[in-house]
Formats: sequence, C-alpha cells, structure tokens
Amino acid sequence: MQPEFSLGELAVRFGLTLRGEPELTVSSVATLAHAASGSLSFLANSRYRRQLASTRATVVLLSADDEPHCPVAALIDPNPYLAYARIAALMHPEPPKVPGIDPSAVIARGAQIASSASIGALTVIEEGAQIGERVFIGPGCTVQKGARIGSDSVLLCRVDLYPGVSLGERCILHAGAVIGADGFGFALNGGSWVKVPQVGSVLIGDDVEIGANTTIDRGAIDDTVVENGVKLDNQIQVGHNVVIGAHTAIAGCTGISGSTIIGQRCMIGGMVGIAGHLSIADDVVVTGCSLVSASIKKPGSYSSGMPSVESRLWRRMVAHLRRLADRRDDVGVR
Amino acid sequence: MQPEFSLGELAVRFGLTLRGEPELTVSSVATLAHAASGSLSFLANSRYRRQLASTRATVVLLSADDEPHCPVAALIDPNPYLAYARIAALMHPEPPKVPGIDPSAVIARGAQIASSASIGALTVIEEGAQIGERVFIGPGCTVQKGARIGSDSVLLCRVDLYPGVSLGERCILHAGAVIGADGFGFALNGGSWVKVPQVGSVLIGDDVEIGANTTIDRGAIDDTVVENGVKLDNQIQVGHNVVIGAHTAIAGCTGISGSTIIGQRCMIGGMVGIAGHLSIADDVVVTGCSLVSASIKKPGSYSSGMPSVESRLWRRMVAHLRRLADRRDDVGVR
Amino acid sequence: MQPEFSLGELAVRFGLTLRGEPELTVSSVATLAHAASGSLSFLANSRYRRQLASTRATVVLLSADDEPHCPVAALIDPNPYLAYARIAALMHPEPPKVPGIDPSAVIARGAQIASSASIGALTVIEEGAQIGERVFIGPGCTVQKGARIGSDSVLLCRVDLYPGVSLGERCILHAGAVIGADGFGFALNGGSWVKVPQVGSVLIGDDVEIGANTTIDRGAIDDTVVENGVKLDNQIQVGHNVVIGAHTAIAGCTGISGSTIIGQRCMIGGMVGIAGHLSIADDVVVTGCSLVSASIKKPGSYSSGMPSVESRLWRRMVAHLRRLADRRDDVGVR
Repeated sequence: MQPEFSLGELAVRFGLTLRGEPELTVSSVATLAHAASGSLSFLANSRYRRQLASTRATVVLLSADDEPHCPVAALIDPNPYLAYARIAALMHPEPPKVPGIDPSAVIARGAQIASSASIGALTVIEEGAQIGERVFIGPGCTVQKGARIGSDSVLLCRVDLYPGVSLGERCILHAGAVIGADGFGFALNGGSWVKVPQVGSVLIGDDVEIGANTTIDRGAIDDTVVENGVKLDNQIQVGHNVVIGAHTAIAGCTGISGSTIIGQRCMIGGMVGIAGHLSIADDVVVTGCSLVSASIKKPGSYSSGMPSVESRLWRRMVAHLRRLADRRDDVGVR
Repeated sequence: MQPEFSLGELAVRFGLTLRGEPELTVSSVATLAHAASGSLSFLANSRYRRQLASTRATVVLLSADDEPHCPVAALIDPNPYLAYARIAALMHPEPPKVPGIDPSAVIARGAQIASSASIGALTVIEEGAQIGERVFIGPGCTVQKGARIGSDSVLLCRVDLYPGVSLGERCILHAGAVIGADGFGFALNGGSWVKVPQVGSVLIGDDVEIGANTTIDRGAIDDTVVENGVKLDNQIQVGHNVVIGAHTAIAGCTGISGSTIIGQRCMIGGMVGIAGHLSIADDVVVTGCSLVSASIKKPGSYSSGMPSVESRLWRRMVAHLRRLADRRDDVGVR
Repeated sequence: MQPEFSLGELAVRFGLTLRGEPELTVSSVATLAHAASGSLSFLANSRYRRQLASTRATVVLLSADDEPHCPVAALIDPNPYLAYARIAALMHPEPPKVPGIDPSAVIARGAQIASSASIGALTVIEEGAQIGERVFIGPGCTVQKGARIGSDSVLLCRVDLYPGVSLGERCILHAGAVIGADGFGFALNGGSWVKVPQVGSVLIGDDVEIGANTTIDRGAIDDTVVENGVKLDNQIQVGHNVVIGAHTAIAGCTGISGSTIIGQRCMIGGMVGIAGHLSIADDVVVTGCSLVSASIKKPGSYSSGMPSVESRLWRRMVAHLRRLADRRDDVGVR
C-alpha cells in the first residue's frame, strides 16, 4: 500500500504554487499519457505538451507558462523536473536496508566493516578493505585489498572495486561496474609489447553515480580521479589518469582515453569518443556520437555526429566529399 | 560420439531436395574451407562461393542456383542458411539440463522455483522471485526481489535481473547482461544533479536473446519494453523507456537513448547511436556506425557511417568540408 | 616499505647510460610533475617535455636528445618508455600469489587443477576444466566445462570462460571479460529469427591481455582466434570467427564484426567499428572512431573519425555536404 499525500501538503513541503483542491490526494507518479486518478504527473519536456490536454492525472507539476493549458489540478514551479525528482523520491522511498552481513559473504579477517553496513550474499570483502557507516553492498560484489567505501554509498550488485580504490560518500554503483582494473599501457619492444605496471589507483568523490558495466581504470602512476557529483551512465570507459571534474554528466557508451582532463559541469552525450592527453574546459557540452580529438578551451557546444539519411543519399554524400579531396587543381589545403 | 544422420533422412526431415546418395552419412557441421569427410557444410553468402569447388564436405546445403557448381552431394533449399540452422541444432543438441538447485546457491525463503528448473552454483534468488518450468540458470546470476522468468528461459551465467524485472519464455541471456539497472535520470539543481527515482521496470517478451554485457535500464515511470523475438548482440545499451518492436535484431555495441520507440522487424547494425525520444518505423535498416538523430517514418535503409580511407586523404576530406562551411560568400545554408 | 635501488644498479641491470651519482637511490616511480625526492620518473611523450625543468625526481629516464635539458640525474636509453616499464615492474612487483583453493570456491570433481595454482573465493570450476601451473584465478570467476588455462595466466576477478574455451600461458584477463558466449547468428524465417547454433570455440594464444568487460564470442563453426601477444583494452567486442593476428593492440570500445581477419602488429584505436568478413593486412594503423567497411590490403594509417567543432559550424558542414549531394546537375557520382 503506497502512502497518500495531499496536494496541499506537497505544495507546502516543496514550495510549489497549487491551483486546485488542496484536499485531493495522490499516491503514485505517472506519465501524462498513462496517468490514472490518484497519480501525479509532470510536464518538463515540450515534446510531451500535447499529452497534457487528455491526461487523467489528479495533478500535474508544470511551469507557469504551461499552467493555463492544464485540465486538472496544477502544482507550479519554474523547474518542474526537479520538483518531480523530489516528490518521486518521497512517494517511492528506497526499501530499508537491513544492517548485517549475509552468511554466504566471504569476509577477510582484516576488513573493517561498520556495524550499520549491509553486506549481501556471496560478496567478497578482502583484507584491509574499509566499509563505512550505512553502506549497502548487494550480492556478488568484490571489495578488494585495501579498497575503501565512504558512508551511505551503495553497490547494487556485482560491482568490483580493485585493490586500493577509494570511493566517497553517498555514491551509487550499478551492476558490472569495474573500478580500478589496469590501464592500457604497453611499451613496444621491437614487434611485441611489454606491460607497463599500473601502480596508481582510482579516487572517486562523493555523490557519484556509476552505471552498469562502466569501467574506470586505475592510474599508471598517479591516480584516476572522478570528482564530487559526477554522473556516469552505463558502459562508459574511463582510461587511466583521466580526471572528470565535479558535477559533469556523461551519457552511455562514451569512451575517454588516458590522461585526459575534463572540466566541471560538462555534459557529454552518448557514444562520444575522447582522445587522450587532452584538456576540456568547464561547462562544455559535447553532443552524442562526436569525436573530441583536440583540447577544448572555451565553454560551448561541440559536435561531429553525422545524422543518418537514406543510404543511397549517404553514399552520394561520401562520394562527393571524397571527390572534393581528390581534385588535383586544389591548393591551399594541406 | 556424435550421432550420424543419412542425407536421405535429412532431406525428408527438413523438406530438402537431395542430389546424391541418400545413404551417405554426416555427423558434424563444418565450413566449406575446413570441412572433412563426414561433415555437412552450407553456402549462403556469395563471398564464400569460390570455396565450393574445393570443399571436402560430404554434402553442401545450398540454393538451386549454386547447385550445378557443387562438386559433392547437395541438399537444395531456397533458404540454405535457415536449413543449416535447423540441421545444426539437430546435430549439436544442447547438453541436457539437470533439474535441481546447486547446494552453493543462495535461495530466499519466499522464492518460487519450478521443480523442473535448474539453478547453478553461487546463484542468488531473492524473495518473491518466480522461476518457471525448465528454466536453466547458470553460475553466478542474481534474480532479485520479485523478478520473474518464464518457462524454458536460459540465463547462462552471471546475469543480473534487478528487482521486479519480467522475462518471457524461451529467452537466452548471456554473461554480464544487466537487466533493470536505473535509467540515467537527473534533474539540474543549479550546478549539481538530483537523482530522479527510476520506478518503472523492464518487460521482456518471449524468444528474446540478449548478448554478453548488454544492459537494459528500467523505466523512469513506465516500463522499458523488449517485445517477442528481439535479438540483441553483445554490449548494447538500452536506455530507460525504450520500446524495441517484435523480431527486431540489433548488432553489438549499439546504444539507444531513453524513450525511443523502435518498430518491428528492424535490423540495426553495430555501434549505431540512436538519440532519445525518437520513433523508428517498422522494417527499417540502419547500417553500422550510423547516428540516428531524428525519427524515421518510412521503411528503408539509413546510414551515416563514414568509411575510412588513408589518413592523409581523410585529413584533406575533413579540411575541405570545413572550408566549404567557412566560406563567407555562401548563402542559403543556415 | 618499498625496496631501494641505486642508480648504478639500475644502469647495469637494464643497460642504461647514467649521468649522475651511482649511489643515489630510488624506491618508487612518479610522473615528472608529481615526483618527490627518492623517485624515478621518465620522459617519453613530448607533450610532457616542459615538465622536465621543474621536476623533483631523483632521476629521469629519457633519450639522449632530452638529456641536456634534464636538471637532475639521468638514465639514458633510446626507448625510455620500455626501460621504464621494466624498472617499474622491478620496483612494484606483483604481490605473491599463494597456491591453494579458497574454501568457498565450487570445484567440480572432474576438474584438473595444478597444485601450484591459486583459486579465489566464490569461483566456479566446472567438470573437465584444466588449470595450469601457477595460474591465479581471483574471486567470482567461472571456468566452465572443459575450458583450459595455460600456466602463469591470471584471471583477476569475475571472468567467465564458457565451455571449451582455451587460453594460453601468461595471459591476463580483467573483471567482466566474457570469453566464448554465443556469436550473433540467426537465420531469417519469414519475419522472425531462428538461432544458428554456435558450435565453434575460442582459442587464445600466449601473453594475451584482455581488458575489463571485453567480450569475445565463440565461433559459429570454426574457432574465434586471438594470437600470441595480442593486447585488448576494455569493452571491446570481438565477433564470432574473428582472427586477431599476433601482437596486435586494440584500444577500448572497439567492435569487430564476425569473420573478419586482422593482421599482425596492427594498432587499432578506440571506438573503431570494423565490419564483418573483411581482411586487414599486417602493420595497419586505424585511428580512433573510424569505421572500417572494406578490406585493407596495404600497411599504413587509415581514418574516418570526424573531429568535433563548434556545434553551429558542424551543422553548417553537414548542410553543405548534403547540399552537394542534392545537386541535380551533378553527374559522375553514383
């Protein structure tokens, strides 16, 4: 049974303007299109504005501009998505985490585990690991020699922290994340490769979220660093000695080569490739499927993702580009 | 010892036309190039036609057009690859799956597991999970709170089903697949991010195959949906609230951003990036390494993957393209 | 306590030319920028040359050309990065691996495990698996039916070797690597797909390193092959029946479609997409984010990664390219 909240209570609690009956109650969140009576919805993306007129939600969170078009009760805020995030967290609280160590977990004698922490089934905690207060570690994780986890962090399941990795407070790591595997470092010796030991570590700040199957390599010498508040989606690859500045968000499948430094509050789209040894300024936006092959010194939006068209037209576009470059009489371009 | 099959038996069983001795027998499959006596091969891709003349296979499955060039016995079918798939399944049957629960598995009291199911070593089944008839779950998986698996589905090893995820019948999931991790949803609050709870689930139909290390996020509010017969290769990322239509096949490393709806019977190549909130029609083909940044309303083939050329030529092509866009006297293009 | 090494000893042991006091000692490695007294640094990438003047390292490994600018003791070698790799391995030795089987591991009766091998917590070794001398397998791995691991190989943690996979000597596999999952093979049957059994295996040579969450599919009929000395970074996808030639190195997030043959000593950048059924010569370089859509017959460097620019300029570039292809009066290009 979901708890119920009156609109009046939500307006007061979150500082929202209410247009409608304060006694109406809601007990769940819903999209505009699929809302039923008793649910709260929101409008934050103009793509969905046309769904407003026919919604069956009891109340819609939206901006003052959209309010006149709302056929039901309205909770008004300049940032309805942020207000939604907070109300959804209130209405769908995390299940309580019961402290204790599952009997099937394998805990080394030297590990330090706070008594308020929760360690899941078949999780391995090695010597010298330090697990902070109220940490939740789900099933199948490994916290290897000397790795540290700050208080209130969550490893949902099957996360690996390699030896010595350090994680801050209130982090969330999803299944399959690998933190601290060796960076890709080899020296050529004639026609073959000699491994370069990767002796740095990974230092992750507070309030960082790391998606499923994302990998962050340990530093070659110095540490790889992920600063406070960084949000990484699934299947991102972070090379050795990368630094990701505070509050930067990166979408899925992006790869960042070694030793590149990314500024604060950047927004990097999905499947972006970023070359190594670069420096990217604060407040840079890179749109999806772009290649960043040189440093970016100024805030702004950068792109090189080529939009797809009908294959026949695309072949013509490629042929034209190639023909331009083949012209013999062309001078002035290296 | 592999069982033997006579060509006559295969022809009758699969409705194929035989040219050759029906008493000849085969006991394994092989490529045209590496076939030895006693093996069955096939020709379905014209790239390999030149290998037909010298094959040592006992029999080759091929089309009527290729039959005259076959130096050995021939089994003729308009779709030799499909016939091959069926004969290979007959000749290389899956090893039998022994029902029962490995003693090292960790099973919650409230889980419902069919007595014909097989649960592997060190697998975790949480409260409220439901495991159907003849389901096979290999080692190291987690089936979390309330997740459901339809009959005859297979989780090969180390697959994670997050809480509440629902899987249909006869599905096959490979190692490292993560189904139901949180979608990537954050609301900006000044310069930092507030997590948007991801309260939807993932609904997967029947006969779906999901490759190694592929990730499918749970919905933000409504569910992420993968319809019947969908085939997903390795390392694919499926964002929250994506819908993938029935019988669509997607090759490895492709990423699909949130809330995009893909039609039925589409074929999406490898390393394709698909932006969010789009709609893609039925029967669309997208070739490898393309970016889909706008909705596709008509069936057909779409591309934007740029073929590589010698690096020196490529630099000229890029410089030319840039120079075109830099021209001051150019009007008519935004 | 790190062991100390005198510069004289290092010069003799590794055949380096020393300029400075042979009695000086070092006990750790460091970057030029962060070195403290007692540490050894190196200069191998010209990007970091400007850091040489202010380094606090006790000694710097560098080439004869850079030596005159070195403010501290110098160890001189034509390939300072290679010399660094060897000295770092001496100064930061791997922790000793204690032979034995963790009591929480699940070992099938028929498995053959060398007495010098080390099997970690919660690792599963199935029937018929063969584990060579001094092999180290960390926590959470599965070595499935009949898989073989050559002597001195290391599976760091949570690696899956599917049935029958064969791994050579001195290999290193990182967390989340999946070797031998089914290739992506389906035959169309009207509007739906029939699975093609994947009956080949994966054959991996000696001295191969495989990064975190990299996947290598088993062959459809013949084996997928990774030759000696190949180095694969994280999150690489290798399709069925691919052959990767000896000493080829591939950076992260690259995907290789089925049946493609890559030569020896190639260097493939990150996030490269390689189509299927191609052949790539020895000694080919492919730069990051390129698409290889046709066979490459000659050594050399190949590219198609488009460098990002300001988004506004990029939109103009795309529009121009498209307009070129739209011209009605254009002939000669298909």
